[in-house]
Amino acid sequence: MNRIYNFNAGPCTLPLPVLEQVKEEFLDYQGKGMSIVEMSHRSKEYEDVQFGAANIIRKLYALPDNYKVLFLGGGATMQFSMIPLNLLPEGRSCDFTVTGSWSSKALDDTRKVGKANVVFDGEKDNYMALPDPASLKLDPQAAYLHITSNETIGGVEWHSFPESGDVPVICDMSSDFASRRLSIEGFGMIYAGAQKNAGPAGVTIIILRDDLLERCPDTLTAYLNYQTHASKDSMYNTPPVFAVYMVKLVMEWLMNKGGLAAAEEMAAERSGLVYSAIEKNSAFYRCPVAENCRSKMNVVFRLPTEELEKKFVAEAAAEDMIGLKGHRSVGGCRASIYNAMPIAGTRALADFMDDFAAKNG
Amino acid sequence: MNRIYNFNAGPCTLPLPVLEQVKEEFLDYQGKGMSIVEMSHRSKEYEDVQFGAANIIRKLYALPDNYKVLFLGGGATMQFSMIPLNLLPEGRSCDFTVTGSWSSKALDDTRKVGKANVVFDGEKDNYMALPDPASLKLDPQAAYLHITSNETIGGVEWHSFPESGDVPVICDMSSDFASRRLSIEGFGMIYAGAQKNAGPAGVTIIILRDDLLERCPDTLTAYLNYQTHASKDSMYNTPPVFAVYMVKLVMEWLMNKGGLAAAEEMAAERSGLVYSAIEKNSAFYRCPVAENCRSKMNVVFRLPTEELEKKFVAEAAAEDMIGLKGHRSVGGCRASIYNAMPIAGTRALADFMDDFAAKNG
Repeated sequence: MNRIYNFNAGPCTLPLPVLEQVKEEFLDYQGKGMSIVEMSHRSKEYEDVQFGAANIIRKLYALPDNYKVLFLGGGATMQFSMIPLNLLPEGRSCDFTVTGSWSSKALDDTRKVGKANVVFDGEKDNYMALPDPASLKLDPQAAYLHITSNETIGGVEWHSFPESGDVPVICDMSSDFASRRLSIEGFGMIYAGAQKNAGPAGVTIIILRDDLLERCPDTLTAYLNYQTHASKDSMYNTPPVFAVYMVKLVMEWLMNKGGLAAAEEMAAERSGLVYSAIEKNSAFYRCPVAENCRSKMNVVFRLPTEELEKKFVAEAAAEDMIGLKGHRSVGGCRASIYNAMPIAGTRALADFMDDFAAKNG
Repeated sequence: MNRIYNFNAGPCTLPLPVLEQVKEEFLDYQGKGMSIVEMSHRSKEYEDVQFGAANIIRKLYALPDNYKVLFLGGGATMQFSMIPLNLLPEGRSCDFTVTGSWSSKALDDTRKVGKANVVFDGEKDNYMALPDPASLKLDPQAAYLHITSNETIGGVEWHSFPESGDVPVICDMSSDFASRRLSIEGFGMIYAGAQKNAGPAGVTIIILRDDLLERCPDTLTAYLNYQTHASKDSMYNTPPVFAVYMVKLVMEWLMNKGGLAAAEEMAAERSGLVYSAIEKNSAFYRCPVAENCRSKMNVVFRLPTEELEKKFVAEAAAEDMIGLKGHRSVGGCRASIYNAMPIAGTRALADFMDDFAAKNG
């Protein structure tokens, strides 16, 4: 097999040893004579999978007992609905940072449910900059402060988070979950579609501080209420078995690599290689993102012309580096380099960038 | 590998050739140098998967152009929320048949959103009987009539459906989807968690008549609105890639077997074998379900004592027939025999039932 370097933004490259294990045990899980996808979610074997997945996430983040780990369907997009429905009580408002495409969508949904107060809007900078966290004028009465820690499309990432006192931070970490060390203190909720650093598409990981569960209104229907899932360990209804199973394996792989500290180091090395290639060839490549908020997950860059960008993407693909086209809404190029991208992959990309600039500059 | 006969209610046994194909191509999908779970959902290859899955379902049900096929996360339970939120306009009511555990849950959620008029409630018969469809007093002004075509836990199944005139029938077919021929006429919506006849857990298949989309209120948040998904072919956000991929393969397998007509025949044969074993040993086994509504998917039965039921389940497991314990809420025994259960599996079960009765009767 000729394994490709996959720079897609998600679903994306996953650890090869994990894929190999899935393949190996796919027809006969633990000698039980059936596949993991055929196994009852009420079986002891599957309970071990799902509790195991929750526990490894607890360990990675060193979660205190007052945080729950949930697994839900519908993607992070579904959380844009559930968060305000559950956690934004009538008559109160939440604070919102608007930093790109994903936080804008989250805001739109929030405003269909209740009041949101925008404390930062990056539109004036075309979403290519983030504020100094200390400069934000936060409402001490806000129900919560919503942040998107990394904007997959724009390529901006919060390098540090605002201090919001008693106001819980709710953070969409879909594209940088499990990529760096984090102190959970101050966070009321973290949520992440698995399909970047944590597994395949089809499950959303939610870390929720349990005092927030008291806000969930009884008037909500069952699936939409966090209480339903928290009280049944995300087994109220059939969970997305295969996706949870793969999350467990990917998180175990990361733990064996050294956990969040190792993820942080590797992310710095990977992104450093690509940003250096941009800088080294600054007459040719340009990163539009402000230096203090460049993403270590999604490196966006422009070439002198759109024709050259097309050529770049095509020639890279011919050398088995795919997925380098920027999101259709912003154009340009983007290298998404999540936990499972080998360092060698970003090195190959950086070398290719040097060569391409030399030949076309 | 010693492949087991898996009588679990779902997730459940899936076609072995499909599992083998998944295993075979898991590391390198179509020679692209990556796994299907690593592939961008915007890639041509994955679009072929998802559109292919929708198309094979269209073919199986011979769907006219005015029906859409959607793939959503959150399970059928999530649809208990979305249906009334989208399709039950303020000031109107829907008709509801309450036939067991799942329809009761659907009703509870519906009543949190709007008005539901119960036209049948099986509680007096302990949910072991269904009404003559023609006897139902339906409201001709109802927004819709909700039916659960098969109750996985109780083992009752509608053998024919009510004529509701202009009132669209909305049907939870989670546990008998793709198991028999069906004329789509009269149905406004069919929905089914995939994890019985159609694939692994993690995706819900929805067949929706497009005039109903006009009811979806603009005030709904994005994920909760059917319009969002219908207008983007279920690609508004990242779909549950692996589950959709397996649904495509399982539905293709069924089509190659002969489609819904073949499924219906096989279901009759499988369930016939088990019901015959009950009848033949009627001094020992007892099916509590009325004859005119016995499920062809979930055969429930009792033994003379709970001790014998325990012994039955344990001895069957020792002979590689697992999952025969009834749902914890009702007790007894249950054999779930979906499309992928080999006829030989139900024959083995029937033989075992004969033996067990002879030895313990």
